[in-house]
Amino acid sequence: MGKLRVNITMSLDGYVAGPDQSETNPLGIGGMQLHQWLVPLEAFRESHGEAGGEVNASTPIAEGILAGAGATIMGRNMFGGGPGPSGEDPWKGYWGDEPPYHHPVFVLTRHPREPLELQGTTFYFVTEGIESALEQARAAAGEKDVSLGGGASVVQQYLAAGLLDEMLISIVPVFLGGGARLFDNLGDSLPRLEQVQTVEAPGVTHIRYVPAST
Amino acid sequence: MGKLRVNITMSLDGYVAGPDQSETNPLGIGGMQLHQWLVPLEAFRESHGEAGGEVNASTPIAEGILAGAGATIMGRNMFGGGPGPSGEDPWKGYWGDEPPYHHPVFVLTRHPREPLELQGTTFYFVTEGIESALEQARAAAGEKDVSLGGGASVVQQYLAAGLLDEMLISIVPVFLGGGARLFDNLGDSLPRLEQVQTVEAPGVTHIRYVPAST
Repeated sequence: MGKLRVNITMSLDGYVAGPDQSETNPLGIGGMQLHQWLVPLEAFRESHGEAGGEVNASTPIAEGILAGAGATIMGRNMFGGGPGPSGEDPWKGYWGDEPPYHHPVFVLTRHPREPLELQGTTFYFVTEGIESALEQARAAAGEKDVSLGGGASVVQQYLAAGLLDEMLISIVPVFLGGGARLFDNLGDSLPRLEQVQTVEAPGVTHIRYVPAST
Repeated sequence: MGKLRVNITMSLDGYVAGPDQSETNPLGIGGMQLHQWLVPLEAFRESHGEAGGEVNASTPIAEGILAGAGATIMGRNMFGGGPGPSGEDPWKGYWGDEPPYHHPVFVLTRHPREPLELQGTTFYFVTEGIESALEQARAAAGEKDVSLGGGASVVQQYLAAGLLDEMLISIVPVFLGGGARLFDNLGDSLPRLEQVQTVEAPGVTHIRYVPAST
């Protein structure tokens, strides 16, 4: 069975999105700075159909994030379109006609909706909670891993429930001063982690954690 | 002139001390976990007059923290003794008759107090604010660096004022769930940093930052 893993970039002050997130600015004020280590990479540009780009110590990390997963789980806020039912002309995500996932994506929501089939990626809307979404994603992924896309609240829920098999946190030298804090609301029984790998790369430090074995 | 540098250990959820700090538990609930990378090291034990201990990738980091500074600045909360004037039988710090500093220590406080001279270390109580404390510490340190000991609020004040020359943040795979958050209250004009070094070590990742050059 594949692992449930999350790869997420965090500011030094702990945010994965800046303040005032909106449809036109989904990462909030200053949030674009989070991905400055990723976007110029050849590995990233290739996955978005563009040529050229940088190769550095972040390249294997980016390749690991972009490949290997057979399904993705994300929260409704990350899928976008604002809160509430989807309405008559429903939001189709931030990613255009051909989202970069190329595998099934399970969106956690309170509002039932028919699957949304786009080129290479179908979005399924799961109203039965995080364990059901994980079960469905694992079935869809087969032997491959399931990627937890975010945002913060979804990561917190899976972490607090002890369902995450691996976290790769990319820490950037950026302060956002507000927004969505990744490690909040972890519950009374705090998760226990073990550090298994650190990678120094230009403008970012990647740290891989797994649940503590003892 | 020596640099003003801070070396501080932070939990993955951003705390440098746990909840419910007190005289008997100055690092708060769970806070002792922060220094599990440091305390077993030979370099640390030596500085506290004990033999034996581990040598690993954290050793040069610990040596850099423990040596080289000619003066320390700390907040009143880190010095301890509770808030308010020092009274008739004043608190003498957490460190006994021979504190591990062996150089002048400047304590930021609102309450005037005569210097406290202990074996090898004199504590000076500064009521004129962070810039005055820095000036006095630099004068005392001569060619050597000034170490900013903490806690969180003092680091925030120096960082927001643009007075820090270097930050070495040691990130441990620990969640504290509450307490003193290091990177809060940074002001509207958020500091801009550059990552200059990352060190992977057992149970900790050390990241060195300097103010961004552009």
